[in-house]
Amino acid sequence: MARIVQKYGGSSVANVERIFNVARRVAQTASNGNEVAVVVSAMGDATDELLSLAEQITSFPPERELAMLLSTGEQISIALLTMALHKLGCEAISFTGAQAGVMTSGTHTNARICRFEAAKVLQALAAGKIAVVAGFQGVNAGGEIQTLGRGGSDTTAVALAAAIGADYCEIYTDVDGVYTVDPRVVPKARRLEEITYDEMLELASLGAKVLHPRAVECAKEHQVVIHVRSSFHEGKGTLVKEAASVEKGTVISGIACDEDQVKFALMGVPDQPGVAATIFSAVAEAGVNVDLIVQSIHRNGENDILFTVAKADFVKVQRVLEPLVRKIGAKELRHQSNVAKISVVGAGMIHHTGVAAGMFQALASAGINIEIISTSEIKISCLIAAKHLQKAAEAIHDYFQLS
Amino acid sequence: MARIVQKYGGSSVANVERIFNVARRVAQTASNGNEVAVVVSAMGDATDELLSLAEQITSFPPERELAMLLSTGEQISIALLTMALHKLGCEAISFTGAQAGVMTSGTHTNARICRFEAAKVLQALAAGKIAVVAGFQGVNAGGEIQTLGRGGSDTTAVALAAAIGADYCEIYTDVDGVYTVDPRVVPKARRLEEITYDEMLELASLGAKVLHPRAVECAKEHQVVIHVRSSFHEGKGTLVKEAASVEKGTVISGIACDEDQVKFALMGVPDQPGVAATIFSAVAEAGVNVDLIVQSIHRNGENDILFTVAKADFVKVQRVLEPLVRKIGAKELRHQSNVAKISVVGAGMIHHTGVAAGMFQALASAGINIEIISTSEIKISCLIAAKHLQKAAEAIHDYFQLS
Repeated sequence: MARIVQKYGGSSVANVERIFNVARRVAQTASNGNEVAVVVSAMGDATDELLSLAEQITSFPPERELAMLLSTGEQISIALLTMALHKLGCEAISFTGAQAGVMTSGTHTNARICRFEAAKVLQALAAGKIAVVAGFQGVNAGGEIQTLGRGGSDTTAVALAAAIGADYCEIYTDVDGVYTVDPRVVPKARRLEEITYDEMLELASLGAKVLHPRAVECAKEHQVVIHVRSSFHEGKGTLVKEAASVEKGTVISGIACDEDQVKFALMGVPDQPGVAATIFSAVAEAGVNVDLIVQSIHRNGENDILFTVAKADFVKVQRVLEPLVRKIGAKELRHQSNVAKISVVGAGMIHHTGVAAGMFQALASAGINIEIISTSEIKISCLIAAKHLQKAAEAIHDYFQLS
Repeated sequence: MARIVQKYGGSSVANVERIFNVARRVAQTASNGNEVAVVVSAMGDATDELLSLAEQITSFPPERELAMLLSTGEQISIALLTMALHKLGCEAISFTGAQAGVMTSGTHTNARICRFEAAKVLQALAAGKIAVVAGFQGVNAGGEIQTLGRGGSDTTAVALAAAIGADYCEIYTDVDGVYTVDPRVVPKARRLEEITYDEMLELASLGAKVLHPRAVECAKEHQVVIHVRSSFHEGKGTLVKEAASVEKGTVISGIACDEDQVKFALMGVPDQPGVAATIFSAVAEAGVNVDLIVQSIHRNGENDILFTVAKADFVKVQRVLEPLVRKIGAKELRHQSNVAKISVVGAGMIHHTGVAAGMFQALASAGINIEIISTSEIKISCLIAAKHLQKAAEAIHDYFQLS
């Protein structure tokens, strides 16, 4: 007998039939003698439909009201899944984020979980009930509903697992584990049995889409073992855990492809102290995370500043930058959306030289130009033209013999 | 300058265009120097769509989960209306029932408001903001979301008006006031300038659909003046208030037509003490309100017990009654859904004799058979075949010269 948190994403609960599939799997886990808490996302396209309603009202909805709106998506899911569990004869009870004790802080639509007061969930488990918790949402100290940003349901699940001392946290998704690269991009991609938190973190940040990076951070901090599995069929999946037991000897664990990028370029920025701070403070105040940043120095006392953000933040950033261009005395603001980021990730990289050179070599052989390069201890990212993404992924996958 | 509560029903916020119409009216009221709190229902058919989702999962959803599900409807409305108000340049803030301090008790989907802790709403008004409150929902002492049953948004609005000491409570609806009879049934119906709480209460209970009876009860208790108005055009509407200033001399205020009726008949019930109590306790425990009740006594020590309930409760009641039939030794359980209730209402009835006789005379002249009769101090109801409803309403309207 174990205490297990299971998290099901939006595609797993997209319709009534799939909700029953999830209910059956949850019921099976419970009937095997386990205590089960379930975290669910909004049904299929529900969040997008709510966003579209908001957009019909205004291009710039107040964040507080957007969180109020979006949080209904998961509330519908938890109610329906709990009904399905009752229909299957299980005792189950649903909790909104606020009811489950998900205490958040920060901006209303990109909040962070600061505390999980799981007394009610623990009480439900102690009473032999399955607890069904709304992902993606919480409540701040003022009692206001906040959402965690896209993918935040993963974080809810991991934080819940930590709060109730679960043995592990199963994340059910539409793929059956973490791959060396997105199998839709490179068909000969290989599933990884295990991966470290750090590697997963880089892969997640880089857009591998399987796990939200904050969920991985949270799992690493609280040493929650994550098991990534398919919600559509049985399979071994991938374990995300501390390095100790993770397979050795691999330099590169995987390749991450991210097409959700838009590039901004501030051209002819005066080379003065504080200019970059002005720009990126303004962007941060708009609640936007900047991804890659490159500053190139000209000879005539002017710089070009390039950076990328998620496509969803395009309008926000443009709104922030347009008045700034004049203020900081920049010459021109450009943007480009047909770009993609490709990255190689691997904890082994720390002890091996030549990985960056190998990646650039692979791209060059495939005739692909690199626009921006960014590196960390265990990853290397290149921004390239979006149309070359698949070719780039295949070239790098082959070069490092990941199959 | 006044403090005003405005309530808009589902048809008034059925789409983005209508939400903006509501927002403009609210903004206009605020810009005239008034403090405004707004209560809204779920958009158009949203509640029915959520109910249909639940029905696809199970015929008997747990009430707690149904309330969890349905409450999302109003939460979507308040978020969108608040966004629209911001778009129009108004400061506005939304509140779920729980956030607004709507404290409820009772069954989860048919709860009553036991307390309105309006501190947050008052704080918003004091800060010059428009408060947008979700109708139809509240939270019980255990922090569980409850819904007030159909039409409960009216009750939320009146309770809010009482809690914040509003000057009056405007209920916007798709008709422009309270009529002597439903104008869709009898075209020569006349709009009433004013009506007393008691008359409105009888009309509301009888299915006049303009105002929820609990809202009228609540208004009477707290002496909240209700102003029923059309959300689609300007007009005088109808004031619902204490008798003092209400027009005198009218015996009959109006006629109420209710097609939302289903009749149950328990045939051959042994004439023993406690049998009726057994039956109606069981129905009450299922959370169903019984409307008309008639017991006819046979000579052979057996009774027939007839009663009517709302059509929505049909399945619940049948589920409760079927095992009871054997238990109490009744011969047969019958039901009939093609019935309608027609009622005449008027405070003047107390001082005038012959109203009942006049009603029966009008129905008899129109060749309409009466199945059940029920009376109170200020109303007389008859259950008739549904197909005769319009003919009956016209005959009674003519008889009492209501035009």
